[in-house]
Amino acid sequence: MNSVTFQGILAARHPVYRFIKPTPLIPYPELSSFFGFNAYIKHENHLPTGSFKIRGGLNFMAQLSDEQKGRGVVTVTRGNHGQSIALAGREFGVHTTIVVPYGNNPEKNSAMRAYGAELIEHGADFDEARELCESLQAERGYYYLNPLVEPALYHGVGTYSLEVFEELPNLDVIIVPIGGGSGSCGTITVARAIHPGAKIIGVQAENAPAIYLSWKTGKTIQTESCETIADGLATRVPFDLPLSIIKKGIDQIVLVSDDEIRKAVRMALRYTHNLAEPAAVTPIAAARKLKTELENRNVVMIMSGANIDTATLKSIVG
Amino acid sequence: MNSVTFQGILAARHPVYRFIKPTPLIPYPELSSFFGFNAYIKHENHLPTGSFKIRGGLNFMAQLSDEQKGRGVVTVTRGNHGQSIALAGREFGVHTTIVVPYGNNPEKNSAMRAYGAELIEHGADFDEARELCESLQAERGYYYLNPLVEPALYHGVGTYSLEVFEELPNLDVIIVPIGGGSGSCGTITVARAIHPGAKIIGVQAENAPAIYLSWKTGKTIQTESCETIADGLATRVPFDLPLSIIKKGIDQIVLVSDDEIRKAVRMALRYTHNLAEPAAVTPIAAARKLKTELENRNVVMIMSGANIDTATLKSIVG
Repeated sequence: MNSVTFQGILAARHPVYRFIKPTPLIPYPELSSFFGFNAYIKHENHLPTGSFKIRGGLNFMAQLSDEQKGRGVVTVTRGNHGQSIALAGREFGVHTTIVVPYGNNPEKNSAMRAYGAELIEHGADFDEARELCESLQAERGYYYLNPLVEPALYHGVGTYSLEVFEELPNLDVIIVPIGGGSGSCGTITVARAIHPGAKIIGVQAENAPAIYLSWKTGKTIQTESCETIADGLATRVPFDLPLSIIKKGIDQIVLVSDDEIRKAVRMALRYTHNLAEPAAVTPIAAARKLKTELENRNVVMIMSGANIDTATLKSIVG
Repeated sequence: MNSVTFQGILAARHPVYRFIKPTPLIPYPELSSFFGFNAYIKHENHLPTGSFKIRGGLNFMAQLSDEQKGRGVVTVTRGNHGQSIALAGREFGVHTTIVVPYGNNPEKNSAMRAYGAELIEHGADFDEARELCESLQAERGYYYLNPLVEPALYHGVGTYSLEVFEELPNLDVIIVPIGGGSGSCGTITVARAIHPGAKIIGVQAENAPAIYLSWKTGKTIQTESCETIADGLATRVPFDLPLSIIKKGIDQIVLVSDDEIRKAVRMALRYTHNLAEPAAVTPIAAARKLKTELENRNVVMIMSGANIDTATLKSIVG
């Protein structure tokens, strides 16, 4: 299977809800009066591992054969995907090896280790780290989970969009952060199947606009760098699977600056009393820019994760 | 009805779950290795209004007669109870009037107004504010909800303890903050009915130890002041209903200092990526003190709420 389907998302519900509960979708009256629309937040930051990615990890592990489970899994990450695979591996009794680039955030590394994963630091960036996965697959016989092309991850993640559309059938607009693209692909796939009238707005960081540029130009555009405070959105190379879905299905992509993201972290703390990581507040940052066109609509903002490190939080709040 | 019963808690499930979802109970491996026991957090901070009190407000509104609903409700609060009644009132179409003392936190006031409550500032402290409720009951015909003696609030709040014991039947210890006492009374009542072996530890602030002192001495002891950073625990006068239940049912009460509470807010941010209000991290602060005796046990800490104001957060993180 190498495509993302509504049926795949429906089927993911069983393995996902064996381990987690649906997350809250909460209306915030103070945010609503600030924005002038009905503001709802989908709290993916409330999940174990502090991010929506756990849904994908659980669905992925459930689809492995016993033989594959026995071999163990190796994957590459900067953070949230790795925590997801580490925890899901523990739940399914699968040995996991997580490769991160040198200099990866130490708090994220320590969280992955705490879930029982073997952590290996390798390479200067995500792409160099990825190469080690391929060698480990060859040398140690691990199952190599490429997070960019594995539909089971997209299907698991898609369950949050099912929850949103089922709980708020009269939503008008849904705003999702776009990093690798798995979250937004789930939203597009679910909306197309059960709520084609919903407007789907993606958000990228101004400093990491690869998917925005590719969507805008119709070509596949890589960027030279992707240095943004929203590390969850720091994608330099867009991949074919998500890009093809996003190009067909997204209504709009908005860029937000690091400064707008910092403001939105503070807004989330003040008005929702939630700690959200920078990537996760980009829908709030985008909503500020789109206030006029969203007026009086029912707007859902996906708060995708909580995993902000201490130093970044201090620099934003202090 | 003026007692707290297990049957009352069971019956509260229907009105409570019409509006909210059960909250997550999440194991945190990093906290576990730090503490040396299996650390679980019950996330009452994930609820609408950011506190466990919403459960009580929903159950209370559901029990009003149509005549009472038509009259409207007046109550007194410093914060979380007021948000609960304001939101529950809105859900049930009941006009709510919330009395707060002068100088009450403006962020809390603005949250209550945003849920549609009429807010009145009156009196120097909670007790003076309470007197106005009584006059408003007489003058305007409101139903006066005295938060200290209304069993419907205790029953609603008790549903979180049901969730905990059902989800983790092999828990050894549960640690709950004690402010007015409604949370701990629910825990005691549920444990007595379905898990009498569980050890229940309450936590109060060193600077607001009225219930601790009353429990310790067997008398009802008021304190001169209750100035603590944990405003949710700032009770000067213990009330008979909760005190009688706590005296019979609690195994231990631990006091924690404001400084220990500040540290625990930072631990919650660092290890769980949750914003918790000072009262809500007192179980974490208590667990630090009890590390040795809790070793290797399954320990649930109730994170009761999220409502920390911006200035306090800044002073703790900065």
